[in-house]
Amino acid sequence: MNAVEIKAEPLTKESFLPFGDVLEVEGAPSMKINDGRCDRFHDICRLSFEEGNAGISLFRSEASPMPYELTLFERHPVGSQAFIPMTSAPYLIVVAGDDNGQPAQPSAFMARGDQGVNYLKNVWHAPLIALQAGAVFAVVDRIGPGDNLQEHRMGRPFYVMA
Amino acid sequence: MNAVEIKAEPLTKESFLPFGDVLEVEGAPSMKINDGRCDRFHDICRLSFEEGNAGISLFRSEASPMPYELTLFERHPVGSQAFIPMTSAPYLIVVAGDDNGQPAQPSAFMARGDQGVNYLKNVWHAPLIALQAGAVFAVVDRIGPGDNLQEHRMGRPFYVMA
Repeated sequence: MNAVEIKAEPLTKESFLPFGDVLEVEGAPSMKINDGRCDRFHDICRLSFEEGNAGISLFRSEASPMPYELTLFERHPVGSQAFIPMTSAPYLIVVAGDDNGQPAQPSAFMARGDQGVNYLKNVWHAPLIALQAGAVFAVVDRIGPGDNLQEHRMGRPFYVMA
Repeated sequence: MNAVEIKAEPLTKESFLPFGDVLEVEGAPSMKINDGRCDRFHDICRLSFEEGNAGISLFRSEASPMPYELTLFERHPVGSQAFIPMTSAPYLIVVAGDDNGQPAQPSAFMARGDQGVNYLKNVWHAPLIALQAGAVFAVVDRIGPGDNLQEHRMGRPFYVMA
């Protein structure tokens, strides 16, 4: 049995657009505030929280050994989910389109520690893959009733190279 | 004329409770996720977005000279506002209760770079006071129609000591 390997590419707004948004300071700000002392990059995510509300949680993760053995995808059918790094720690992102209710061919991205990411609702993604122990992320996702988690176990693992 | 000075105290959840929430990793997590590799501190903010929705923006600020000359308070009548540091930079917080539509006696807090903060709606607060140039914060606040900003210029400045 051949192992399937994918190599992470650098995370950019353009390449990630079908899956979600990259939260990064780039280009010209939307406006100046606070008497010109502060740049505001305004409303840069496509948030969505059906039958629920936005909440903020904190995630603190162990480091995942590399290459990452990807065995599980998840998605959130009724809510987007944003990850904002608070410890400048890089992390690995794996996403996939949908193929009849299962993840299609995955794509992997290497996120810098100054890049947040927002998964659109219902986008298949790997669980948080931190590259440093004790990495902390603020997570903006849906708080509400009902089931907002679907999981898919892979028949055989992918190996993701950072 | 005597200058009025206030000294910032360390930011803690307890002391900040009347004004909002502190976003920090502390104590036992709400749950373990990702096969036990990640701690989730669940839904730790009192968010509120009336007649609007949550949005995520990024703020990039210059450093403010110290002591900080506080001349302006603001508040957001129909939305909470959370600041999540992305560059581990400490910052200064000044808040005040309300006294007939004006800020009452201010309180100042020194936030560490690993502490976020969420202002409850309608709480008087100073604009973002960064202590390092280029400090970046993810801001979760209300995106919606109508006016969500009230400002109050102080008759004479307060000087805030970090």
